[in-house]
Amino acid sequence: MPHRLIITCPDQPGIIARVSQFLFDAGANIVHSDQHTSASEPRRFFLRVEFEGADAELTDRFASLAAQFAMTYRFVNGAARKKILLLASRESHCPQELLWQIRAGDIQADAVGFAANHPEMQSLADEFQVPFHLIDSSDRPAAEAEILRHALAADFVVLARYMQILSEDFLTRCPVPAINIHHSFLPAFVGANPYRQAFTRGVKIIGATAHYVTPELDAGPIIDQDVQRVDHRMDVNELKRIGRLSERMVLARAVKWHSEDRVLLDGNRTVVFS
Amino acid sequence: MPHRLIITCPDQPGIIARVSQFLFDAGANIVHSDQHTSASEPRRFFLRVEFEGADAELTDRFASLAAQFAMTYRFVNGAARKKILLLASRESHCPQELLWQIRAGDIQADAVGFAANHPEMQSLADEFQVPFHLIDSSDRPAAEAEILRHALAADFVVLARYMQILSEDFLTRCPVPAINIHHSFLPAFVGANPYRQAFTRGVKIIGATAHYVTPELDAGPIIDQDVQRVDHRMDVNELKRIGRLSERMVLARAVKWHSEDRVLLDGNRTVVFS
Amino acid sequence: MPHRLIITCPDQPGIIARVSQFLFDAGANIVHSDQHTSASEPRRFFLRVEFEGADAELTDRFASLAAQFAMTYRFVNGAARKKILLLASRESHCPQELLWQIRAGDIQADAVGFAANHPEMQSLADEFQVPFHLIDSSDRPAAEAEILRHALAADFVVLARYMQILSEDFLTRCPVPAINIHHSFLPAFVGANPYRQAFTRGVKIIGATAHYVTPELDAGPIIDQDVQRVDHRMDVNELKRIGRLSERMVLARAVKWHSEDRVLLDGNRTVVFS
Amino acid sequence: MPHRLIITCPDQPGIIARVSQFLFDAGANIVHSDQHTSASEPRRFFLRVEFEGADAELTDRFASLAAQFAMTYRFVNGAARKKILLLASRESHCPQELLWQIRAGDIQADAVGFAANHPEMQSLADEFQVPFHLIDSSDRPAAEAEILRHALAADFVVLARYMQILSEDFLTRCPVPAINIHHSFLPAFVGANPYRQAFTRGVKIIGATAHYVTPELDAGPIIDQDVQRVDHRMDVNELKRIGRLSERMVLARAVKWHSEDRVLLDGNRTVVFS
Repeated sequence: MPHRLIITCPDQPGIIARVSQFLFDAGANIVHSDQHTSASEPRRFFLRVEFEGADAELTDRFASLAAQFAMTYRFVNGAARKKILLLASRESHCPQELLWQIRAGDIQADAVGFAANHPEMQSLADEFQVPFHLIDSSDRPAAEAEILRHALAADFVVLARYMQILSEDFLTRCPVPAINIHHSFLPAFVGANPYRQAFTRGVKIIGATAHYVTPELDAGPIIDQDVQRVDHRMDVNELKRIGRLSERMVLARAVKWHSEDRVLLDGNRTVVFS
Repeated sequence: MPHRLIITCPDQPGIIARVSQFLFDAGANIVHSDQHTSASEPRRFFLRVEFEGADAELTDRFASLAAQFAMTYRFVNGAARKKILLLASRESHCPQELLWQIRAGDIQADAVGFAANHPEMQSLADEFQVPFHLIDSSDRPAAEAEILRHALAADFVVLARYMQILSEDFLTRCPVPAINIHHSFLPAFVGANPYRQAFTRGVKIIGATAHYVTPELDAGPIIDQDVQRVDHRMDVNELKRIGRLSERMVLARAVKWHSEDRVLLDGNRTVVFS
Repeated sequence: MPHRLIITCPDQPGIIARVSQFLFDAGANIVHSDQHTSASEPRRFFLRVEFEGADAELTDRFASLAAQFAMTYRFVNGAARKKILLLASRESHCPQELLWQIRAGDIQADAVGFAANHPEMQSLADEFQVPFHLIDSSDRPAAEAEILRHALAADFVVLARYMQILSEDFLTRCPVPAINIHHSFLPAFVGANPYRQAFTRGVKIIGATAHYVTPELDAGPIIDQDVQRVDHRMDVNELKRIGRLSERMVLARAVKWHSEDRVLLDGNRTVVFS
Repeated sequence: MPHRLIITCPDQPGIIARVSQFLFDAGANIVHSDQHTSASEPRRFFLRVEFEGADAELTDRFASLAAQFAMTYRFVNGAARKKILLLASRESHCPQELLWQIRAGDIQADAVGFAANHPEMQSLADEFQVPFHLIDSSDRPAAEAEILRHALAADFVVLARYMQILSEDFLTRCPVPAINIHHSFLPAFVGANPYRQAFTRGVKIIGATAHYVTPELDAGPIIDQDVQRVDHRMDVNELKRIGRLSERMVLARAVKWHSEDRVLLDGNRTVVFS
């Protein structure tokens, strides 16, 4: 697996020349590179490079170049696998899809913990040999304290249809990003019961959105979305059934891309080098 | 072309038996039939039948059966073509797509008038030999009076990116339905500049929605919607360019379906026998 | 669950009138009805009706009407669940998807047996408590004899990425239909290694096809297909990874529709009342 | 409009470093860059760079660097518009779509000639003020001689549903590439009447493919493809109607991408930096 270099900085001439020269001098061969410059002023520069032939321990050597261009950057060892804390409630389709794709090798990450406020999730966690943590969502401070404790051992948190709202206090204290799957094409149908909202409005498509969690409900940076056509014959339960397929696919893609450092933040928007 | 019978009524046993027996007795052969019963109480029944072998003048003979089941119904001569009043502003892609599809025989209807508040539309109207009416949207009462006058000669109105809001008074007085194309996947991005709203929110899909016009802005019954994937590289202009393709396709489908009596109203939802 | 009546016969006037009158007289209320008449001569008539209020034991009473119209027909008890024999080889994604959708209640059928020529499948069968049968595909006659024995206890067979070709002799003797998932958009890339064929040809979409098995390889009636966009960055392994998602979805839809008697044969084509 | 540098060469370390240093030294700022390395041995390197701040006349200065890496390369002035020779037969939807997207500014190219073997195309050419050439396809050598004459004045040829096969001799002598739209998802349904073939096979999707023309029929490098779902209710004419929408969209995308130098050849496959 190639290593990765991820860079975000203000745009200016010469960045690619300097970075690629640095890698060449370090003996690294670029095997893939994705670059983006944002369209609106002040323009920002985003770069994701995959390289071979050098090890990933280049952070210190890169520091002076990075300082010169005011870069936010990180080198990532391609052999390392990110650690996921899964959060779920009563519905199993999302955590199950993720656990399957991890086991199949399609997602390059490991589930190191599975917390849920419904005991039915235990058997799924057991089946995939992931440590299970039953949390009591009726006591939110205690529940969030426990989630936070497990999040500290993970690289990111995945809300795989976790039906509780995380407090702003939790989000402030949680040191790792959290990805949520919302069961509508945002910004439509924010909040509770999006499939019922969709049925009532009579839309001809339903969808799902994976996004980073921020304090404002369902308003964080969107990583991926998808929709399916629906029609008048489908009641709310049928919308839910079909929607679960989109939720699974969209969340799995977002988790895969985040695990491979393909998602960069540009304010409240994302740059996805998929 | 087969004739059509369109029925909406409260659901109860025996409707199909009675209607199909009526048609059989009238010498009609059903060549296609679509039926739907709504899921929520009180359940309503929707039927669209295409038949051959009898003429379409069965309205009077059907009246007593219709009364018995409290039906709203109409017989439509399959050879008749609906008359469309087109409304547009400055962008030509939507009226042009409709005029092409009409000329190609893909939409079974005729444009009998083309009203716009920008004179640039005249050449398009001329090219397709549709009477053109320049309206002055700075004087809304006068503009709407003129639109209403032309609407009276049409079977329905199509707002093909007409960028003015029609008043509730106009809608109350207009005797024919109006179909609008909104350049977002409703209910997201209601109102002005939906592509800019979409860009700012950072969505990964953009779309278009064709709906019947009601007094509440962008809230009428949805006929069709579609989306396309977008990504971080696309600025607002690129979203508009891609979006125009969806707008054209979605509006053309909605106009085609309406022209063929495939769209039935179920409150603020639609039954589309596509 | 409503009961079902499925009819295929030569087209002629009056079928719907007679059938719906029969159901009305039997005390049945039609809650959903789908009808199709084929376009090419001699035109054939296809009907699928869901009804409530009468039991499903109407076969005998219907016989004389059916004879009059030369109908092939069946009444299906809506509460009955079809029995599936699963066949697989080494890859688990397809049987796993089916078993999960069955457990979730999304597919109205039961897996009554799981035969595979690779022992790794046993744990999956065990997890879902489906009787497992290890077959030795190196001795095809013996393998097919065993599959046939299990098929006799099922309503249909699903080849969920079973990588052996079933002999014409087997297909002749097998009394129940078999559904296969082929990992390409047929008729492209028939036979072995379709993803490698797709990569070599440089296509920009890949797909999957669910079809009924007939003696000619990958040439049976198609039930469903779907595709995904791919690009130059994807090697054969990536095509396989993405393709597995299509295979799972397409096969699950086909099995669901077959389980609900929504798939009718029209020569080598299918009528799918989805 | 930024200028472009397009490079293809054998893969080796240091290419990006050297090229980006060259551009930096020339005063050019890279505003967008796409890079790909093919997966199979011998690995090839593909690069498309958009740059500002320097003019496009860097060909000579780049020669020695290019020689060192055995590069095939070209600099393209971003302000230049490629010249298209359109070829069509009797159906107007494809040339019409292209001419409209050109006029709308969505395709950065100009139609400099429109040759057709049916006189009905003349009015379309006139409407967009493109010189029209009626060719007599009953005399293929003469027809191809005339097409060749017009092709010499163009940068590429677009077969917008031109229903004649171009001879190998023509293709050998034609100095510019030709893009064809085939009305199926290749490699399925090569040759004549693909919609009829699709109907007969009973597929559930139909599609269109844009590809470069090579002597082997419908076998050249694929630029883009797309599909739409179809069902049993659609006869061949309905497949054609729906298919025309895909043909228009797919061909327009391919022509747009080719016009912007986004399509690079990798043997019989394409790298599309869309």
